[in-house]
Amino acid sequence: MTHLLTMTELSIEDIDRILFDAELFAQGSKWKLEKQTFVANLFFEPSTRTRFSFEVAEKRLGADVLHLEAMTSSVQKGESLYDTVKTLQSIGANAVVIRHPNDEYFNELKTGITIPIINAGDGCGHHPTQSLLDLLTIKQEFTRFKDINVLIVGDIRHSRVARSNAQTLTRLGAKVYFSAPLEWQDHTNPYGEYVDLDEGLKQADVVMLLRIQHERHQSSMGLTKEEYHEQYGLTLKRGKNLKKGSIIMHPAPINRGVEMASELVEAKESRIFKQMENGVFVRMAVLKRVLQQVEGGILI
Amino acid sequence: MTHLLTMTELSIEDIDRILFDAELFAQGSKWKLEKQTFVANLFFEPSTRTRFSFEVAEKRLGADVLHLEAMTSSVQKGESLYDTVKTLQSIGANAVVIRHPNDEYFNELKTGITIPIINAGDGCGHHPTQSLLDLLTIKQEFTRFKDINVLIVGDIRHSRVARSNAQTLTRLGAKVYFSAPLEWQDHTNPYGEYVDLDEGLKQADVVMLLRIQHERHQSSMGLTKEEYHEQYGLTLKRGKNLKKGSIIMHPAPINRGVEMASELVEAKESRIFKQMENGVFVRMAVLKRVLQQVEGGILI
Amino acid sequence: MTHLLTMTELSIEDIDRILFDAELFAQGSKWKLEKQTFVANLFFEPSTRTRFSFEVAEKRLGADVLHLEAMTSSVQKGESLYDTVKTLQSIGANAVVIRHPNDEYFNELKTGITIPIINAGDGCGHHPTQSLLDLLTIKQEFTRFKDINVLIVGDIRHSRVARSNAQTLTRLGAKVYFSAPLEWQDHTNPYGEYVDLDEGLKQADVVMLLRIQHERHQSSMGLTKEEYHEQYGLTLKRGKNLKKGSIIMHPAPINRGVEMASELVEAKESRIFKQMENGVFVRMAVLKRVLQQVEGGILI
Repeated sequence: MTHLLTMTELSIEDIDRILFDAELFAQGSKWKLEKQTFVANLFFEPSTRTRFSFEVAEKRLGADVLHLEAMTSSVQKGESLYDTVKTLQSIGANAVVIRHPNDEYFNELKTGITIPIINAGDGCGHHPTQSLLDLLTIKQEFTRFKDINVLIVGDIRHSRVARSNAQTLTRLGAKVYFSAPLEWQDHTNPYGEYVDLDEGLKQADVVMLLRIQHERHQSSMGLTKEEYHEQYGLTLKRGKNLKKGSIIMHPAPINRGVEMASELVEAKESRIFKQMENGVFVRMAVLKRVLQQVEGGILI
Repeated sequence: MTHLLTMTELSIEDIDRILFDAELFAQGSKWKLEKQTFVANLFFEPSTRTRFSFEVAEKRLGADVLHLEAMTSSVQKGESLYDTVKTLQSIGANAVVIRHPNDEYFNELKTGITIPIINAGDGCGHHPTQSLLDLLTIKQEFTRFKDINVLIVGDIRHSRVARSNAQTLTRLGAKVYFSAPLEWQDHTNPYGEYVDLDEGLKQADVVMLLRIQHERHQSSMGLTKEEYHEQYGLTLKRGKNLKKGSIIMHPAPINRGVEMASELVEAKESRIFKQMENGVFVRMAVLKRVLQQVEGGILI
Repeated sequence: MTHLLTMTELSIEDIDRILFDAELFAQGSKWKLEKQTFVANLFFEPSTRTRFSFEVAEKRLGADVLHLEAMTSSVQKGESLYDTVKTLQSIGANAVVIRHPNDEYFNELKTGITIPIINAGDGCGHHPTQSLLDLLTIKQEFTRFKDINVLIVGDIRHSRVARSNAQTLTRLGAKVYFSAPLEWQDHTNPYGEYVDLDEGLKQADVVMLLRIQHERHQSSMGLTKEEYHEQYGLTLKRGKNLKKGSIIMHPAPINRGVEMASELVEAKESRIFKQMENGVFVRMAVLKRVLQQVEGGILI
């Protein structure tokens, strides 16, 4: 049985295969589950895009969806995550998608749970389907990762995206750079080099902006939104000086006027809504990967 | 691409067509979408009947439903309505149904969103599918609108129903009267004449009661529930003196014993639960109207 | 039209028939609704397993599910339960599943509602599908109820499970014993005899543990969790001295280390997750029973 918990567990061949399948889905291929299959989506943190992206992916494959948000469940009665997941398995879930605020929540599930687990985000840890959709977006644009310069800007320290992407992009041959306020730098992350934002932008093929997660840490780094935008945001001025052929990415939701000028969200360089489209295709590929072994399915 | 935002944008021919289709659905016609189609329901205010009415209508047409309530989403992370809707479009929604507390929230969506928007209620503004189901209910009863006397009773000032219905009924040839406490009168609404309740009831073919929206405005008009019922409610006594052949309507939920005597809710003159049935048929017709251009569908 | 409100309304033949159908479903039989059928699940209390168990059962029969949680609905606008259910019926629900904190909430629904009502738990009253899944689990194990010794341990006074099960098991020929702290004993329940826990365990074929419902009553019975576990919990030591061939049951969610030692939850004697599996099959049988008369269905 196959889980998808972190990017590090995926070989380069695994990644290639997922991106290949995702691109087929992007081009209109269909693959349907042969039997009635239930996928449970467990969201212990609010989410619009990840939740609906999984839900659309699941329904496109023909799955039935069980949607659980933590606030309205037995979790309130103090049930452990393990017991909740084991319950869903007993009730008939054939796979489970989980977002949870605790780092590596899945460690307590590895024994005893016999259905595939897909990690939809754990605390400040991992978010593999976000990484995969970012990879698909870059590959669609440049057809390769080797020697692509990726500049990741913002809250490197607390970002699931930064962590997963920097390592994976490095493995795939890309060059990763970081730009961040001192307090949001993470020097335990060896997969990138810190550069000045304006210097970095000159070389970047991909400008990957991170969201300021106001809800995850109270204290900002002592900058107002305006100061952050001026010092670390993609201002209109910076947007005009991007390297030719480069693209702008952001995992969303966007704090308009903070991480980037509002006018750039739908600029021709922006792939932000393309990333969301790709999110569905990547999740279809991941679901196909974990479900085809247990449930079967057919190309139609 | 066709939205449904307000009643004023619909021509009389449009209204006739929607009511015609709705009546076909009421009589058992089936129409199914040809392709897998996703409709996102975005509810930024609580609602039972409108939400489920749309959900049943969507599923009867064969659509997959994405249901979003504002409390459990990225909206909490401060995302704009535009970005939320654009996200749902990117993820694969083929149409979006929105209820939102802000008047004319849809103005910020008209540019950039390329899927149909169906307004399921905006602030104190519009609620076109409620108007359409009211129209269908009246038409089923009287087969026409011309010269039908409609008496709308209650909180005219804050009611989406009063606003949409008074104008549309006037366009269709009905005669509209209002009865309301002074503070809930709205003299900017030119599509009706204020009358004394008991005088109005003598002539009314349709008695359309409005709900007191305790949740929408703190200060009532200085009347207790009992006083309101006595002065502006459909008491048992008033219920006995209705014009022969007249019907009682209410958009629900009903404050029993306030807008009307509890015993009248299911009286033979009441069409309140009939209105709810018609709500599904009208929404099927509206969804067919906006989806058939983009997604295709077939009568079965 | 058939409701399922309490176990007492079911004859022994009814129970046999439901368990027979449930066992067929457990062994892989399929039965599908012939027409598009909507089942509304109304949960006025939080629940994971009952809610999803019904949802999976409904979808396995091919029904469309309308899911309503009380916190996000017109119930907040003060609507009565009757009006909410009548609304769902008008909108097109073909059956309704209700969990509600009030004892015998369904009495106010018996007149006026013409669709089947399935009780998914009322206050401290009844929870018939929980009883049925417990019965199925016992029958699978022992093939009969006659002379089976069932020891129910814990909060007898406030438990829906204890009330329904003790009576039904007695009717079916089993012998029921209770073990509980003085304050949680219920001497109005004539269907069992109070015994000392350790004495009872020597004879018990079925050890049925009840959950401590911290959320339902503030004051515990003056014992700490550790004291409760020591005096009334299935400790590891007690687990080693169970009668040969006996089984452990718990309606879940489990307070690990309180009602039972955490290590016993998945012991070979435990049928706790089996109970959850059976819950789906029993609910399929119950839904088939109430829906086949009105909607029709076929074995496939």
